[in-house]
Amino acid sequence: MMTINLNIQTVTAFAAATCANVAVGFDILGFALENVGDYVTLSRRQDHEIIIDTITSNESLPYSTQHNTASAVIKKICQDLNIETGFTLNIRKGIPMSSGMGGSAASAVAALVAFNTFLNTPLSKNELAKYALLGEEVACGQQHPDNIAPCIWGGLTLIVSNNPVEVVQLPIPDVFCVLIHPHLQVATKQARAVLNDAVPLKDHTRQSAHLASFIAALYEKDIALLKNSLSDILIEPQRAQFVPGFYEVKEAALKAGALGVSFSGSGPSIFAFSASKSDAEIIRTAMQAQLENKHIHSDSWISRIAKDAAYVTELL
Amino acid sequence: MMTINLNIQTVTAFAAATCANVAVGFDILGFALENVGDYVTLSRRQDHEIIIDTITSNESLPYSTQHNTASAVIKKICQDLNIETGFTLNIRKGIPMSSGMGGSAASAVAALVAFNTFLNTPLSKNELAKYALLGEEVACGQQHPDNIAPCIWGGLTLIVSNNPVEVVQLPIPDVFCVLIHPHLQVATKQARAVLNDAVPLKDHTRQSAHLASFIAALYEKDIALLKNSLSDILIEPQRAQFVPGFYEVKEAALKAGALGVSFSGSGPSIFAFSASKSDAEIIRTAMQAQLENKHIHSDSWISRIAKDAAYVTELL
Repeated sequence: MMTINLNIQTVTAFAAATCANVAVGFDILGFALENVGDYVTLSRRQDHEIIIDTITSNESLPYSTQHNTASAVIKKICQDLNIETGFTLNIRKGIPMSSGMGGSAASAVAALVAFNTFLNTPLSKNELAKYALLGEEVACGQQHPDNIAPCIWGGLTLIVSNNPVEVVQLPIPDVFCVLIHPHLQVATKQARAVLNDAVPLKDHTRQSAHLASFIAALYEKDIALLKNSLSDILIEPQRAQFVPGFYEVKEAALKAGALGVSFSGSGPSIFAFSASKSDAEIIRTAMQAQLENKHIHSDSWISRIAKDAAYVTELL
Repeated sequence: MMTINLNIQTVTAFAAATCANVAVGFDILGFALENVGDYVTLSRRQDHEIIIDTITSNESLPYSTQHNTASAVIKKICQDLNIETGFTLNIRKGIPMSSGMGGSAASAVAALVAFNTFLNTPLSKNELAKYALLGEEVACGQQHPDNIAPCIWGGLTLIVSNNPVEVVQLPIPDVFCVLIHPHLQVATKQARAVLNDAVPLKDHTRQSAHLASFIAALYEKDIALLKNSLSDILIEPQRAQFVPGFYEVKEAALKAGALGVSFSGSGPSIFAFSASKSDAEIIRTAMQAQLENKHIHSDSWISRIAKDAAYVTELL
């Protein structure tokens, strides 16, 4: 039987924004960013309630504990583990909604990591992933682990099994990630709905070659091979419609020295890899300028791929 | 201008049998075997003719120099390089026809490697591949490099570009290959014709995960991961029809300890990987027994993956 450490009153955990797909690995690859993510504070209550106290965000998020991913997963895990302690949640969203940056995964994972700290016998990452998946179902109707995996394990992850979630941690390439969030909202459901149910066999083969050479490039630390492989002929063309001027943004990034450019998850956010911080700055400027040409404002981040993506930041 | 070394009269080269696809990499992966392959002897003539003298084989192969892959590629390369020296070819086929073991590639590559030895400035592997591709066109109507690549480069190859052929040499896993050739003929054309033009997106994703984890397993030298990844949900089910009892053969191999089993190229040959030589012997026996149950005789080989696949064996 699982028990709560009664010496702990409040835990705050951070969980990072994540980029799923990574051009070559639709629904199987993802990586975590540094310094951008969500914070969830869990405070032990005297009653049995799970309650959201505050959500700090630029957007309006559901306070209903059934519809908020953070509270929904805490409710479910308390039920399953027969834990009768109640919790108050305070959520600070650093990740914009429907941005393709794994915001729903991050809130759920931050809540779970905070919760796990209360347990006298903490759960494994695989067990946490099971609950985080339920959060994804609350958020978008499907249990996709492509943001969950990099958010829980950190680094660059390959999902080899969806449910239960099984992950291979790939070598982290020595690159910088430029992440641009155009101020457009694309719901994951909508971004999935546009995809063809089938892939031409010859495109499957070509895309498989990109994926395999990307994995080889990671292990070989071969930046030229990584650059050659980072191309999505399958999914990106179907989703380019969601960002006016997407191809101009991509072209500008590549011209400015990007190693590869594609959507972060289902978009509209766009990531680019670069070999250096200074390249990253130039690439960011070029990408944002193209968006401004279309009168689209954007936020941006420059980050290494984060080795650790979810961790406790405060414990009282 | 290319010139011929007039001190050389006769060169014999060997080129190995190869297994394309390797379950997880349709049209992009392949590996070479040891000790089974074709030999081609090129003898310099006084006239300008390209002539096939003998073909040693259990089967009847075309003596027409336009339709034999070995002579066709020698004709073409002599034309392109403006070499007016004639050659007599003697071909010893160790690879059965239409077996899925890369016989046409091996004959072309052996001829090209022998030819290259005559050149005062030998051609690169990439240049040889270009001509070997023409041999594949002669043999099956299409320029597929999936047997060419492992035959020329050896080891386990990933094709990242078809034409020009570009290859990544992957780590060679520490396994034994059991190769069974059921006495059935499946023409490559026929084996391609049965394939659906499209792949369901969800199957693409699953198969991509298998491919990516296979590549990771090679670098990590992780035999358990290799075993988990070696699965073809796309192509194998469509070609199983060509070998009566295919699934029984596969099941028997896995029960006997195989790490993975699938078609070699487009079949009907079947390869299995095993962790040890003694496992390989047991797996071979089990597979052949299943075929015998269906009254299908077979040949078999047990081999490491060959580091070198094509080389000169005699020079006079």
